[in-house]
Amino acid sequence: MDRRLLALGLLLSLPASADEGMWTYDAFPSDTVNKAYGFTPTQAWLDHVRLGSVRLAGGCSASFVSPEGLVMTNHHCIRGCIEDLSSPKKDLLAKGFYASSAAQELRCPKVEANQLVEMTDVTAKMNAATKGLTGAAFNTALKKETAAVEAACATSGDVRCDVVTLFNGGKYHLYKYRRFQDVRLVFAPEFSMAAFGGDPDNFNFPRFGFDAAFLRVWQDNAPAKSPHFLPWAKQGAKEGDLVFVSGHPGGTERKATVAELEFQRDVNLPYTLLQLAELRGMLREYAGGSAERYRTTRSMLRGVENGLKALRGRHQSLADPALLAGKRQDEAALRQKVDANAQVKAATDGAWDEITQALDAYRRMLPDYRMKEAGDAYPSELFRMARHLVRVAEEKERPNAERLREYTQSQLPTLEQQLLRDAPVTPELDQALLTFGLTRVRETLGADDPFVQQVLGREAPADLARTLVRGTKLRDVKVRAALLKGGKAAVEASKDPMILFARKVDAEARAARKRYEDTVEAVLKRNGERIAKAHLAVYGTSGYPDATFTLRLNPGQVKGWDENGRPVAALTTFGGAYERHTGKEPYKLPDTWLKARGKVPPQTPFDVATTNDIIGGNSGSPLVDRDGRVVGLIFDGNLHSLGGRYAYVPETNRAVAVHGEGILAGLEHVYGARRVVDELRKASDAAVVPAK
Amino acid sequence: MDRRLLALGLLLSLPASADEGMWTYDAFPSDTVNKAYGFTPTQAWLDHVRLGSVRLAGGCSASFVSPEGLVMTNHHCIRGCIEDLSSPKKDLLAKGFYASSAAQELRCPKVEANQLVEMTDVTAKMNAATKGLTGAAFNTALKKETAAVEAACATSGDVRCDVVTLFNGGKYHLYKYRRFQDVRLVFAPEFSMAAFGGDPDNFNFPRFGFDAAFLRVWQDNAPAKSPHFLPWAKQGAKEGDLVFVSGHPGGTERKATVAELEFQRDVNLPYTLLQLAELRGMLREYAGGSAERYRTTRSMLRGVENGLKALRGRHQSLADPALLAGKRQDEAALRQKVDANAQVKAATDGAWDEITQALDAYRRMLPDYRMKEAGDAYPSELFRMARHLVRVAEEKERPNAERLREYTQSQLPTLEQQLLRDAPVTPELDQALLTFGLTRVRETLGADDPFVQQVLGREAPADLARTLVRGTKLRDVKVRAALLKGGKAAVEASKDPMILFARKVDAEARAARKRYEDTVEAVLKRNGERIAKAHLAVYGTSGYPDATFTLRLNPGQVKGWDENGRPVAALTTFGGAYERHTGKEPYKLPDTWLKARGKVPPQTPFDVATTNDIIGGNSGSPLVDRDGRVVGLIFDGNLHSLGGRYAYVPETNRAVAVHGEGILAGLEHVYGARRVVDELRKASDAAVVPAK
Repeated sequence: MDRRLLALGLLLSLPASADEGMWTYDAFPSDTVNKAYGFTPTQAWLDHVRLGSVRLAGGCSASFVSPEGLVMTNHHCIRGCIEDLSSPKKDLLAKGFYASSAAQELRCPKVEANQLVEMTDVTAKMNAATKGLTGAAFNTALKKETAAVEAACATSGDVRCDVVTLFNGGKYHLYKYRRFQDVRLVFAPEFSMAAFGGDPDNFNFPRFGFDAAFLRVWQDNAPAKSPHFLPWAKQGAKEGDLVFVSGHPGGTERKATVAELEFQRDVNLPYTLLQLAELRGMLREYAGGSAERYRTTRSMLRGVENGLKALRGRHQSLADPALLAGKRQDEAALRQKVDANAQVKAATDGAWDEITQALDAYRRMLPDYRMKEAGDAYPSELFRMARHLVRVAEEKERPNAERLREYTQSQLPTLEQQLLRDAPVTPELDQALLTFGLTRVRETLGADDPFVQQVLGREAPADLARTLVRGTKLRDVKVRAALLKGGKAAVEASKDPMILFARKVDAEARAARKRYEDTVEAVLKRNGERIAKAHLAVYGTSGYPDATFTLRLNPGQVKGWDENGRPVAALTTFGGAYERHTGKEPYKLPDTWLKARGKVPPQTPFDVATTNDIIGGNSGSPLVDRDGRVVGLIFDGNLHSLGGRYAYVPETNRAVAVHGEGILAGLEHVYGARRVVDELRKASDAAVVPAK
Repeated sequence: MDRRLLALGLLLSLPASADEGMWTYDAFPSDTVNKAYGFTPTQAWLDHVRLGSVRLAGGCSASFVSPEGLVMTNHHCIRGCIEDLSSPKKDLLAKGFYASSAAQELRCPKVEANQLVEMTDVTAKMNAATKGLTGAAFNTALKKETAAVEAACATSGDVRCDVVTLFNGGKYHLYKYRRFQDVRLVFAPEFSMAAFGGDPDNFNFPRFGFDAAFLRVWQDNAPAKSPHFLPWAKQGAKEGDLVFVSGHPGGTERKATVAELEFQRDVNLPYTLLQLAELRGMLREYAGGSAERYRTTRSMLRGVENGLKALRGRHQSLADPALLAGKRQDEAALRQKVDANAQVKAATDGAWDEITQALDAYRRMLPDYRMKEAGDAYPSELFRMARHLVRVAEEKERPNAERLREYTQSQLPTLEQQLLRDAPVTPELDQALLTFGLTRVRETLGADDPFVQQVLGREAPADLARTLVRGTKLRDVKVRAALLKGGKAAVEASKDPMILFARKVDAEARAARKRYEDTVEAVLKRNGERIAKAHLAVYGTSGYPDATFTLRLNPGQVKGWDENGRPVAALTTFGGAYERHTGKEPYKLPDTWLKARGKVPPQTPFDVATTNDIIGGNSGSPLVDRDGRVVGLIFDGNLHSLGGRYAYVPETNRAVAVHGEGILAGLEHVYGARRVVDELRKASDAAVVPAK
C-alpha cells in the first residue's frame, strides 16, 4: 500500500487510473475512457444517463427505471420512510412491503426526489461579488450572492436551485433540479434481508445484501411520467465488464490541504467518532430492552453503526503515515510551482498559513460550536422541530440575503414541508437521546460553564429531558402548522416548553455559529478558493472536482481484488447467501427466502464488486453498462473505499452493488413482485437507448 | 499555551520548573528544591517519607498514618473491595462503612499493600545478559534475566521483587517490597460523596470530592505494626505552601520518540478511546435497567468514565500541534548531538528508523493482538479466571525463565491468591460484557476471519456468551482451587465450558502475543534502550526517569491557576460543597452531610490544588509538608494534568487533593468516626519526625 500511495502522491493531480474520478457531466473524460476501454460516450448517451439519474434530498442517489415514474434506490436510503409508515402492529421494516396495485402505493412523508435538468457556470458572478474581500466580509458576500442567484432561479415550488461549489471554489455552478414531492413506496424487502450480514458485513465483501427498494414519483395524484429512464439490461454484468456509476457522491477531500487533513485526523474525526461510539453503545443496549424499543431504534442504530464504521475507516486511512507523506509531497510540489509564478504567488500569499491559523482556532472552539449550534447537545427530533420553528419565524422577517443559509427563499419550501409532514416521533427514544445530549454538554463544557448553567440550571439532564419531551405538544402536526403560520408572534406567545427552551438557548447558539463562520469557515473558504485557483492556474482543469453531493459519472469494471494475499472474487451468488445463513441475526434469512430455496439457480449473481470510484451519497446509484442500461444497484463499498475520501487506490478500492440479475430474480422468485418485474421488462423491451 | 510548550521543547531534557519531575528516592534533586523553596530534605527525611509510603498492587498509592498499620488511600482505589463486601441487602458502596472496633474491620478479598524497603542497581547485570542481541533474542534474554533476578530476590511469600525499568532501559533497578496480604476496610464514605460531582467534575476544579478511605494491614490475625508512618500535620496547608507528593505515578511518555507519540495519537489512543466510549454508552444504559444492575455496574462504569476522560485528555494534548512541534525540536537536537559523537552515533545507528518500522508493523497487527491476546474480545471476569487457570497449569511445567511474564515464580503467588479469593461475580453483567467483546471481535476481524469462525462458529455472540457464562462453574472458589491444585491434568480433564473455550482460543492468542513481542515490543525496547543510553551519554543523568508505577517523590506548592483568563482558586471549602448541592445526582450530598450541615465552619478547606507533577497511579498518595506530615490526600488532577503524560506545563498542570483539615473534619463531625480520628491524633502527637 505504501509504495502505491507514494506513487499516487507523485502523480499530483492527475488521476493514476482511468477509473479514478467523480466527473461532472459537463467535463467527462471520454478520451481517457476510450483509451482504457475502447468506448466513447456520446452527448446523447450522457444526457440519457444524467436524466435517468435521481437525487433523494435526504442524501442518497437513485434512478428512473420505467417511463411511469418508477424509481430504484437502496432499502437503506428509504428506511426512514418505511419506519414512518410502520406501527407496532404493522411493522413494514421487519416484514417488507409490496404494492400489488398503484392504489396500494404508500406516500413517504419525508422523501423528495430531484432530477438535474440544467447546469450553468456562475463563477464570474460569484467572483465579482467577493472580489477583494476577506474574512467575515468574504463569507457574507458569498452567502448573499448565493441566496440571490438561487432565488432568481427557483421560480416555482417544482424547481430547486443550488449554487454548487466545484474545485473548492475554483468554480461555481448553478444546478437546477425538477422536484418531485409526492414519492410513494412500491416495494421493499425485509430489513434483515436488505441488511443481511448487519454491521459485521457492512463495508466488507464477499457479502449478500439485497439492499434494493422501489419507489414511484407521483404528480397530481397519478404516477408521474418519466420519459428519461434507464432500462434494465438484457444481459447481466460479468467479471471485467465496463460499468458506469451515475450518482451523487456526498463529499471527498482529495484536494484538501495537509493542515486540513491533519485537523480531520487529530481533532474532528476523533471527536465525532467518540460521540458515535458512545451513542452506539447506548442505542444497542436501549434497543435490547423490548421489542418495541428495538422496532423504533433499529434504523437509527443502523445509521449510527454505518457512520461509525465509515468514519473509522477514514480515520484509519489518515493514520497511515504513507497517505499523508504523499499529500505532503503533492502540496510541496504545488507550492513550488506557485512560487515560480509571480502572479499566482501574489494571489496565494499567506493562504496556507491562514488555513493553519483558522484550524488552530477551530480546534479550540470546536466543542463550543458543536455543543451550542451544531446540535450535539440536542439529538432530539422534537428539539430540532422547535429550533426550526423558532428560527423560521425570526429569519423570515429578514431580507433573503441576510438569513441563515438554511432559511433562504430557495431552501424554505423543503424545510417547511418537512415540518408539516405527519411522521411519528417516539417520545421514549427522543427523551433518551436528549438525556444523552444534555449529559454530554455538561461534561464537555463543564458544570461551571455559564451556558451549561443556563441550559440545566439545577436540573439533572434526565429530568430536564423528561420535562421537555413530555411537556411539548410539537408531536402534533397541527401545533407545528399553527406556529409556522403564526410566525414570530405565535412563537413568542407559545408556552410550549420545547419552544421556550429552543428560544432560551438560541442567542448563545447563534453567537457560537457566528464565531465559527467568521473566524473559521470564512477563512477556510476564501483561502481554499485561492489555493484552488492557483491549482487550476498551474495544473489546468484536467482534474475532477471534489465530491459535493452533486451528480457525477465514473467508469469502472467488474473486478475483485487481493486482500493481503487472499483473492476476493468479484461476484457472490444466491447459493452463497444460503450457505451464510446460520439462523442467527445478522445471518438469518427471512422466511420468504427460506421458502424460495431452490427456485433460483444457486449460481445466479447476488452482489458484485467494481472498481468505480464512489463514496457515501452514491448509495442507490444505478450501475449501467455501455448501452446505458441497468446492470446493478450500488449500496456499499469495501473497507478500502473509505479511504477514498482522501485518495483513490485502484488496486483495492471497490464499490459494491446488488447485481441486476439478482434483483430481478429476487423480485420474481422470492417476493413474487410481478407488477414490478413486468414493468421493468416492458420498459426494457420498449426502450430506445441513444447510440454510442 | 503554544509558546510555553515550545519553550519547554527548547529546554530539552532539563526540567523547566522546580516542580517538574517524578524523582526516584535515590536521586532526589534536593539542591533544586532548596534553591526554589529554601528547604533541603535530609536522607533521614527521605527514608521516613519513603517507608511511610504504600503501594496498592491494583494500581494505586497510599500511606501509613499510624504505627498500628492504619493506611490512608482514596475511596476510588478500593471501590472494588467495597463492592466485593457488598450485597443487595448490605450496600456498603452506597451507604459507606465504619468499623467502630478492630473486630469489625472487614478483609478486602483482592487488595494487597506493598512497602518499598530496598532498591538495588542491576543495570550491569541486565546489560550483560542482552549484550549484542537484537529482536526477539534481545527480548527473550531480557525476560530470562528479569525472571532470574526477581526469583533470587523473592525468597518468601512476604516479599515481592520487581526489576524496574528506568530511563526507558537506560537503567534497571531491583525493587524489593514488603507484602501485606491481609488488608481490611476501616472506613469509607458513601460512593456519592467520594465521587461528588461524578463524571462532570472528574478532572475539573473547583471540586468537592471526599475521596478518602482508611484500611488497616493485618498480620497473624492482629493489626500489623508500622513503625514508619506519616503523622497528621498540626496545621493545614495554605496557598503558597511547599508540599510533597510521595506515590506511584503509573506511566509517562515524556522521553518517547516522536514516532511513538504519533502512534499514540493516530492509532493506539483512538482505538482504545472508541472501545471505552462504546462500553460507556452500553454500561450507562445497562445500569439504568434496575437498582441491582446499577449496584453491580456503578464501580466499573466510573472506572470506564475515568479512563475515557483521562485518555481523551491525553489525545487532546497530542492533537495540539505545538506539543509535537516541541518534541520534534527536542528529538532533532538530541540527534544532532548524537551525530556529533562518533561512538554514541555508532551505538545508536538505525534506532529511530527501527522504531518507526516496528510501529508501522504494530499499526497493522494491533486489532489482531488486542482481540486475540490482550483481551478486548473477552472483557469477562469468568473468562479471565479460565485463561489464568489454563495458563498457570501450562506455564508451571516450564522452566521459570521461559514462562510468560505473569506466570514467573515472582508473580505467581499474587496471581494464585487472587484466583482463590472469594469475591462475587455478577453473571448478568459478565454475560453482557462477554457479548460486547465477542461482538467486537467479529466486527473488528470480520465474519470470514478464521479465528472468528473458530471462536463463534455459527453462534451469535449473545448466545455464545450466555452458554459460557451460564454453563461455567468457575464462580465457585472451590472449583477454581481444585483446578489450580490439579494442574495440567485437571485442566485438560475439565468439561467446564469456559475452560474449554479458553483452551480453544489459546494457541491463536499465544501466537498473536509472540508476533507482537518479537516484532514490536522487542524492537521498541531495544531501540528505546539505545536511545536512552545515547540521551544519558550526551545530556548526563540530571533528569528524572519516565514514570513506571514505582515510588517517586516530587515538590510543589499549593496554588490555583488561570483558566483562559478566569482565575481558579487553590482551595475549596465545606461551604462550597453545600452550595453545589442540587439534590440531583451527581450533585446530591448524602444524608450524613445534610444532617451535619453547620457542624463544620463553612470556610474549612475541602479540596486543594497544587503544582505537584502527578499522573494516574498517584491516586491515594499522601500530600506531606516540610515536616514530613500529612496535609492532604491526592485523588485527581485538573484537565491540564492529563497532558502531563507527555509534558509538564507549570502554569496550568495541577494535582488535586482532599485537604487534610477537610478529611479530619469530615471524619469527626459528619461520620463520627471517633476511633479513626483518635488514632490519627494520637499518632500525630507521639510522632518523632526526622530532622530536616
